[in-house]
Amino acid sequence: MTELSPLQKARLKFKPVLPATLAAGITNLSLIEGNATESVADQEQIQKLFPNTYGKPMVTFEGTASTTTFETKNVGVILSGGQAPGGHNVVAGIYDALKQANPENKLYGFLGGPAGIIDGKYIELTDEIIDAYRNTGGFDIIGSGRTKLETEEQFQSSWENCKKLNITGIVIIGGDDSNTNAAMLAEWFKSKNAGIQVIGCPKTIDGDLKNSQIEISFGFDTATKTYSELVGNIQRDVNSAKKYWHFIKLMGRSATHVGLEVALQTQPNITLISEEVEQKSMSLSQIVDYMADIIVKRSKLGKNFGVALIPEGLIEFVPEMKAMIQNLNDLMPTLEEDPNFTQLTSGVEKEAVIEKRLKAENAAVFRSLPAMIKAQLLMDRDPHGNVQVSKIETEKLLIEMLKIKLYQMKQEGVYTGKFSDQSHFFGYEGRCAFPSNFDSNYCYALGYNAFALIQFGLTGYLSSVRDLTKAPQDWIAGGVPLTMMMNMERRHGQMKPVIQKALVKLDGPVFKKLEANREKWALEDHYVFPGAIQYFGPSEVADITTQTLKLEHEASLSLV
Amino acid sequence: MTELSPLQKARLKFKPVLPATLAAGITNLSLIEGNATESVADQEQIQKLFPNTYGKPMVTFEGTASTTTFETKNVGVILSGGQAPGGHNVVAGIYDALKQANPENKLYGFLGGPAGIIDGKYIELTDEIIDAYRNTGGFDIIGSGRTKLETEEQFQSSWENCKKLNITGIVIIGGDDSNTNAAMLAEWFKSKNAGIQVIGCPKTIDGDLKNSQIEISFGFDTATKTYSELVGNIQRDVNSAKKYWHFIKLMGRSATHVGLEVALQTQPNITLISEEVEQKSMSLSQIVDYMADIIVKRSKLGKNFGVALIPEGLIEFVPEMKAMIQNLNDLMPTLEEDPNFTQLTSGVEKEAVIEKRLKAENAAVFRSLPAMIKAQLLMDRDPHGNVQVSKIETEKLLIEMLKIKLYQMKQEGVYTGKFSDQSHFFGYEGRCAFPSNFDSNYCYALGYNAFALIQFGLTGYLSSVRDLTKAPQDWIAGGVPLTMMMNMERRHGQMKPVIQKALVKLDGPVFKKLEANREKWALEDHYVFPGAIQYFGPSEVADITTQTLKLEHEASLSLV
Repeated sequence: MTELSPLQKARLKFKPVLPATLAAGITNLSLIEGNATESVADQEQIQKLFPNTYGKPMVTFEGTASTTTFETKNVGVILSGGQAPGGHNVVAGIYDALKQANPENKLYGFLGGPAGIIDGKYIELTDEIIDAYRNTGGFDIIGSGRTKLETEEQFQSSWENCKKLNITGIVIIGGDDSNTNAAMLAEWFKSKNAGIQVIGCPKTIDGDLKNSQIEISFGFDTATKTYSELVGNIQRDVNSAKKYWHFIKLMGRSATHVGLEVALQTQPNITLISEEVEQKSMSLSQIVDYMADIIVKRSKLGKNFGVALIPEGLIEFVPEMKAMIQNLNDLMPTLEEDPNFTQLTSGVEKEAVIEKRLKAENAAVFRSLPAMIKAQLLMDRDPHGNVQVSKIETEKLLIEMLKIKLYQMKQEGVYTGKFSDQSHFFGYEGRCAFPSNFDSNYCYALGYNAFALIQFGLTGYLSSVRDLTKAPQDWIAGGVPLTMMMNMERRHGQMKPVIQKALVKLDGPVFKKLEANREKWALEDHYVFPGAIQYFGPSEVADITTQTLKLEHEASLSLV
Repeated sequence: MTELSPLQKARLKFKPVLPATLAAGITNLSLIEGNATESVADQEQIQKLFPNTYGKPMVTFEGTASTTTFETKNVGVILSGGQAPGGHNVVAGIYDALKQANPENKLYGFLGGPAGIIDGKYIELTDEIIDAYRNTGGFDIIGSGRTKLETEEQFQSSWENCKKLNITGIVIIGGDDSNTNAAMLAEWFKSKNAGIQVIGCPKTIDGDLKNSQIEISFGFDTATKTYSELVGNIQRDVNSAKKYWHFIKLMGRSATHVGLEVALQTQPNITLISEEVEQKSMSLSQIVDYMADIIVKRSKLGKNFGVALIPEGLIEFVPEMKAMIQNLNDLMPTLEEDPNFTQLTSGVEKEAVIEKRLKAENAAVFRSLPAMIKAQLLMDRDPHGNVQVSKIETEKLLIEMLKIKLYQMKQEGVYTGKFSDQSHFFGYEGRCAFPSNFDSNYCYALGYNAFALIQFGLTGYLSSVRDLTKAPQDWIAGGVPLTMMMNMERRHGQMKPVIQKALVKLDGPVFKKLEANREKWALEDHYVFPGAIQYFGPSEVADITTQTLKLEHEASLSLV
C-alpha cells in the first residue's frame, strides 16, 4: 500500500473547474466551425506534405440542450518527453469525458512514451487508477519517453497495435516536436483511411510551445512558481546574510520564457536572456563584463551580495561559443583516431593540440575558458562524439570568469569588494510538482476537450483552451489544426515541416517589462518573495497565474 | 515602495495562536518556579564558571486574573548565525508582549548579528517595521551575523551600548553556540551587577539544539518541509522518467536530523546518516559499496533510477577522512613555505609530494580520491590554511567513486545496468522560506514568552515552549536555565562550558523508523510526495509538524 502525503490526499479530492461549455457534458456539445486555416508560413509546401489534414477550420465548442448519443470509442493516450505538472489531469480529463460519453468506452495508456504504441505496451485505465492520480504531478501513471514517432515502420506498427485494441483515437501529450509528429501521424492515418484520429495537447514547462492560438503550454505555470519560490527564498537569505552572490541556472535550453517569468515574479539583480545575447551577438566576455559591472556597482553601495538568473541554454546563444563548439565537434573525431593525440596523458597537452587545430578565432575562445570548463567540453561527449552542451555548468563557467575579471578590476583599483559565490541549478525540482490550481484546471479541460474533438470526428488538431486570464468557467474550448502552426525548418541538414518554437520576443511585453525595470532591480533591492505554491486559501494567492500570460493578454487586447 | 507577493500580503494578516497561558496577556501572568536545576554534566565546573546563574529553577507561566503593572523596560534583540524560518515572528512576539506590558517600552534591534550590540548599531523597532515582517521568512528585519560574543571587551562594549539606550533586557536568538554565549553574557552582567538580563531563543534549521527541555529548535519544521517538497518532486520525476539516479545533499554539517526527517517524509531509496557512519567507523569505500549494492540490486529489478540523500557533513564523520584532513591541515603550512613545493606547476606533481609526506594510511585515502576532490582539498583552504570541508562536493565525490565501482562491477559481470547521475545541494532554499503555521506560532510564542521571562526578572534562561505536538493553545510556556543544558567540551584545545549539541541518536525512535524501513524503501518504491508547504486549507495539511517531533514525543510518553 502506497503512503500518501496529507497534501496528496487533499489534492485527490480537488474538483477541477471545466469551461462552462464543456461542463454542459460531453453529450451536450455542439461544434462550431470557423474559417479554413493556413499554415503560418510555407503554405504551399505544408499543404503538399499534409494533403488530407491541411486547411481545416478552427473549431470551438458550445453547449447545447439536445443530447447526442455516441457509438463506443476506444482511445489511446501517450505522454511524450519531459515531465510537466498537470499531465495526469489531461489523462483524467480524457477519461472522464470518454466514460461520460459511453461507459463502454475504453481508455488505454501506452507505456513509457511513444515507444508504448510502437511496441504495443499499454494498460487499460480504470476508475481506480485515474482516481489515484488526479491533481498530482509527474507522468508516472503510464510513464513517458523520448522515442520520436516519425518513421513509416513506427506508424505501421502503431496502426497494428491500435487495431488489436480497437482504438480509433489517439491523444499525444507533448511539446512542439511531439505535436509535429502527431500531425504527421494524423496525416498518415488519413492517407491510409485507417479511421484513427490523432489529437495533440500542448505540454512543456519551457513555455516555448505558444503562438497566436496557444496562449501557454501546460506545466509552465506550476514549474515557474516552484522555481520562483526557491529564487525568492534564496533572495531573502541573500538579503539577510548579505554576504553571497547566488548564481541560479534555470531549466530551459531553447528559450528563456522560464527565466523571464521567474525574473518578473522575483525581481533579482541580474537576469540573462539567451535571445537577447544572440540578438546582440554578445561574447562570453561581454556577458561577464555586464555582470561584473553590476557586482562592482553594488559593492560600491556596500552590497557584496546579489542574485543572478542564468538560462540553461545560454552558451548555445553566444555566437562565438556556438562556432567554437561546432568546430570542436568537427575536429574531435579526427583527433580521436590520431595516436599522436590519444597517447597524450595530460589534459593540458591535449588542450594544446586542440588549440592548434581549431580555427584561430575558435582557438581564442577555447583558450579563454576556465580549465574546469575545457575539461567538461572534452570529457562529456555524446555517443556521436559531440559536446554535450547540457552538461556544461554555465553558472560555474560565469563564476570562474567573473572571479578572474573581478581580480583584474581589483588590481586596477576599480573594485574593492568581496566576492563569495554560490551556484544552483533548478529544473527537476519543478517538473513534477503538484499542478497549481491553474494547471489542474487547464489540463483537465485540455483532456476533456481532446476527447470531445475525437468524438466529433476531428483529426490532426491540437486541443485548445483559451482566454486563460479569465476564470476557468469562461475559458473557450475548441481545436486548432496542427498544420496551422507549422512551417518549414532545417533539421539535421534537411528541410522539415515543424511547429514553430516560440522564443522570447525582445519587442514583446514580457521582455519589455524586464527591460524597463532591470537597471533599478540591479542596484536597488526590489526582491519579491513569492513563497510556496498554495492550493488553498485566498483566490488571489491560490488562483493567480503567470505574469507572462497576463502581460501577453493585455498586449493582445491593445492590438485589437 | 516594496512590491509584495500575494502570499506575503496574505501572510502578513495571519494571527499566530499563543499558548492559552500567554494569551491571557503579559499583564495577567504568574510565574511558577520548579525545583533547582543542575547542568547535564560536569556540575562542579559549570557551577564554578557560572556562580551567579547556576542552579536556578525551571519556570512555567500560568494565567492569572489579577493584573500586574510594570515599570518601563527597554529590550534589545539580536539575530545570530544562519537564517531559520520564523526569526521575524520571535521579534514580533517580543515586540507585542513588550508594548502590551507598557506602550512606553522600547524594542531595539541590533543590526547584523552580535556585532550590532558590540558596535552600537541598532534601530528602534516600530509598529510599521514589525507589521511588515510578520510571518515572513528571513532575518532581514535587522540582519544577522556570525561574530561570537565571548570576550571581556565585547561584553564591556555591549554594556556601554545598552546603557546608552537604557536597555535592561537582551534576547539572543541563536543556535547552541549563541546560547552558550548568552549564558556567559548573563553571568557576566550579573557579576557586574549591571542590571541587564539575557534570554536565549532556540534557533537552527539543523535541529541539533534539542534536549530534554527543548523539543525542537525553530526553523527545523519549515526547512525540512521545503527540502521534502523538492525531494518529493524529484522522486516523482525519477519515477516518471525512470532514467536517473539523483544524489541530493542536504544542509546540516554537525548532525543529520534534517536528512533523517526529510527521509521519513519522502522515503527515498538511500539515506546516509553521518552519526551511523561514525559509529560503525565506515570508510568511504564501505559507504560506496553500500550504495553500489542498492544500485545494482535495483538495476536487476529493471530500475536504473533512484534517489539518495547525503548529509552535508558526511565526510567529517568518516574516521579515515577526518584523520587524512587533519594530517593535511598539519602538513600544508610547512609545504607552502618550501620552495621545492611551491615551484611545482602541475597539480599532479604537487599531489605526488603530498602523498609522500602524508602518513601512510592517510596517503592511501588521499590517493583513492577522484582528481576533482583532490583539487578541491588543495585549492579551497581557509585563511588559516585549513581544508574547507564545507566546500567539498561530497555528492559528487560519491558519484565519482560510484562510477568507478560500478565500472569494476560491470567488468566482473555482476552489473549490467545503466548509471546516469544528477546531483543537488539543498540548503539556502529552505532557510528563509515563509515559516509554516507551526513555526509561525512557535516563534511568536517563543518571543512573547522571552519578554515575559524578562518582565519577571529572570536572566540566563532559554525561552521554552513545550508540548509542541498538541494544539498551540495547549503549549506550555516557561523558561529553562541555560546552565542546565551545559557541559564541558574541548574546543580548540581548551575545555569550555558549552550547550551540548544533539546528534541523531541511533537508538532513538526517529532513526529506528528509518532503520526498520530502509531495506524496503531501497528496492521497492515507496516514494512519498509531500508537495509545497501549505499555509491554508485543511488542518491536516497546513498544521502538521515533523515526524521527528511526533516520534520523539511518542517515545517520551512510553518512557513515562
